[in-house]
Amino acid sequence: MKVKLTEEQRKRLKEGALLYHKNNFPGNGKIEVIPKIRLKDFYDLSLAYTPGVAEPCKAIASGESPDDYTVIPNTVAVITDGSAILGLGDIGVLAGMPVMEGKCVLFKSLAGVDAFPILIDSKDVDEIVRTVKLISKGFGGINLEDISAPRCFVIEERLKRELDIPVFHDDQHGTAIVTLAGLINALKIVGKKFSEIKVAISGAGAAGIAIAKLLHHVGVREILVVDRSGIIYEGRKENMNPYKEEVAKFNIHNVEGDLAKAMEGADVFIGVSVGGIVTKQMVAKMADDAIVFAMANPIPEIMPEDAKEAGARIVATGRSDYPNQINNVLGFPGIFRGALDVRARGITLNMNIAAAKAIASCVGEDELSEDYIIPTPLHPDVYPKEARAVAEQAIKDGVARRKVSGKWVEEHTRKLREFYQKVIAPINEERRKWSSMP
Amino acid sequence: MKVKLTEEQRKRLKEGALLYHKNNFPGNGKIEVIPKIRLKDFYDLSLAYTPGVAEPCKAIASGESPDDYTVIPNTVAVITDGSAILGLGDIGVLAGMPVMEGKCVLFKSLAGVDAFPILIDSKDVDEIVRTVKLISKGFGGINLEDISAPRCFVIEERLKRELDIPVFHDDQHGTAIVTLAGLINALKIVGKKFSEIKVAISGAGAAGIAIAKLLHHVGVREILVVDRSGIIYEGRKENMNPYKEEVAKFNIHNVEGDLAKAMEGADVFIGVSVGGIVTKQMVAKMADDAIVFAMANPIPEIMPEDAKEAGARIVATGRSDYPNQINNVLGFPGIFRGALDVRARGITLNMNIAAAKAIASCVGEDELSEDYIIPTPLHPDVYPKEARAVAEQAIKDGVARRKVSGKWVEEHTRKLREFYQKVIAPINEERRKWSSMP
Repeated sequence: MKVKLTEEQRKRLKEGALLYHKNNFPGNGKIEVIPKIRLKDFYDLSLAYTPGVAEPCKAIASGESPDDYTVIPNTVAVITDGSAILGLGDIGVLAGMPVMEGKCVLFKSLAGVDAFPILIDSKDVDEIVRTVKLISKGFGGINLEDISAPRCFVIEERLKRELDIPVFHDDQHGTAIVTLAGLINALKIVGKKFSEIKVAISGAGAAGIAIAKLLHHVGVREILVVDRSGIIYEGRKENMNPYKEEVAKFNIHNVEGDLAKAMEGADVFIGVSVGGIVTKQMVAKMADDAIVFAMANPIPEIMPEDAKEAGARIVATGRSDYPNQINNVLGFPGIFRGALDVRARGITLNMNIAAAKAIASCVGEDELSEDYIIPTPLHPDVYPKEARAVAEQAIKDGVARRKVSGKWVEEHTRKLREFYQKVIAPINEERRKWSSMP
Repeated sequence: MKVKLTEEQRKRLKEGALLYHKNNFPGNGKIEVIPKIRLKDFYDLSLAYTPGVAEPCKAIASGESPDDYTVIPNTVAVITDGSAILGLGDIGVLAGMPVMEGKCVLFKSLAGVDAFPILIDSKDVDEIVRTVKLISKGFGGINLEDISAPRCFVIEERLKRELDIPVFHDDQHGTAIVTLAGLINALKIVGKKFSEIKVAISGAGAAGIAIAKLLHHVGVREILVVDRSGIIYEGRKENMNPYKEEVAKFNIHNVEGDLAKAMEGADVFIGVSVGGIVTKQMVAKMADDAIVFAMANPIPEIMPEDAKEAGARIVATGRSDYPNQINNVLGFPGIFRGALDVRARGITLNMNIAAAKAIASCVGEDELSEDYIIPTPLHPDVYPKEARAVAEQAIKDGVARRKVSGKWVEEHTRKLREFYQKVIAPINEERRKWSSMP
């Protein structure tokens, strides 16, 4: 399968994307809810609904696990309040729906997770937390999506504390995990260790904060996070919040100044901010064998060719038309697959790191190069390996409630992907024929 | 297709029902969420998710209808608080999940509606209303399910007032509509008019109250509703609520007494209460050509053979092993299909009546008999006709937002059912082969 878009495809992306969302029988949009049981006669009807359905209800009421009779353990709610949809900002929950449906499509096709979009029409943190809690029993996990910072941190922290199922804010942890995966391989190439490097991060939103914390956790000592007001340091007064206070501690020399200052001598630059704000000069002043992850979308902080010209050895972006795409899609499907398969009570930091290592491991030592530090979402091993690593780490961390082996999880993931390819995907070809119908 | 269960099937219903809910690859339970779009290469991935997905988001943000790009207009939330699951009572939301999934199965297979279960873990009316409102933008309709009376009345009334999408409490209106459908045909047989009959209803819960109100609306003058404290009348002090006060007005002669008293001279008995409380004597004292709808499940208020022996001319139950099953399944799929197809702002009383008439009309004049007053859920015309009638009435009542003809709605419903039979159902046979997999 081709990983890059052709010039022609890029040109018709807008038109193609609008058409792609329309007229998918039945109706528009990208997902549907189907029965997964035989329903061919009256007997089946009596089992699916009254009177037969009373039996599993009674079984659950008398203490058997709902997991044995319902879809709950394989189901994730994809929840947004519409406040930070893609790079588009606060465009409201309805306008965010295509992203949520897209997420559900990827959950299912890449890792067999049943995901359903939940739009919460409120910006109030307490209300969002309360709503998610009240509906959480119907789900095996909660994927928070496109919620603006710093509210996203509070919402996620509270839900993690109050719920006993995995809660994962993809814009934070998904991005951080895939960034870490790329960085693991990039550092191999340049022969540096996490404990030795200095990292400059542009952006202190959901992604920037989460990346800083994850890198700190894996041993990076000096991390300078830069926002619109400059480098974040302890004691800074303007434009701070508790999450910035936390990453200010990683600025161990309490450096003040702007982004250019932060990048001076840095081994790694990570951009999760806005396009075009990094110059060639800034890259030129980084350390030798500089690593530049310019992940703003669609325009990176600096274009890869410019970064290379200025001396960067390894460049990654969020774009699909350059090598080394740091793509969230590499994370959430496998992470939830692993967490659900062991019915994890939550997702630990170690599970995130295990996921990153598993992603990185999909690029073989012999394949590894400046232009290939991260696998693509089409790599057949990414999700099975990731799910396995996450499940095994959940067991180690004592958050797993279901005893299955890592090997089982890996095979289960492969089987789910195969089922999608062989059974589900073909009906979407058949569906095309129906789409011109009323 | 056979409508009745064999003796053998009835015997193994319990075991069969438990097995039916297990091991439906992937995992357990009865529904799954699948992509309904082609996703075969990187280009498709770029359309389903970033960067392409930004296009429909922007289109919606700038004023285009979300209906054009999302599944919202075809999607119904099946919502419960677990307080009145089937006849089992307050067994909690988790134990209610099989019923909710079953409902989703029927919505899809019978009328092509995408339905998803939402379990709200609270018994507080304000909290339930607030939660439903907050998540309502992601749905084209709300089906309330198995919520105990009288809370269900308050919750439904408030949601109807505050939301601009159909809100339907199936235990009330579904039952009332299908009862009315049966009664339309039963009255044809005995040659009586709604304006002439006296009706006794046993049960003043969700169903009893809704049936009384719907029958009053179609012209029945005298309706006696009986609860545990006896006949409800104006001025009664014990065990009342505002909904009972309302139906007390239909007791036009302010009769007091017990169920036996209520049934004296009644043309119609409707039982939505508990098994075995009606005796042969009580039926014998009804008017000539008595109609007995004994719908308690699984044991009717009186067994059909006993009611017949005591002189009832027409008997209906909620059971599938006797003639004339008054089955909710005849209602909600077609009603929502019609309401969604015109994007109705709500469901009016007239739409309910239109649905009942459409159901009744599926039994042809030449087929009509004491033992065949209501079609089965397997009748191919029920849902298409019902959807059409509901849609046409929505247009008449000024609650339709989308202009399509009744004929279009009927054909659309047939097409959706055909799609299910030809495309979706076959994969559930294929699925059986995978169910022994991990």
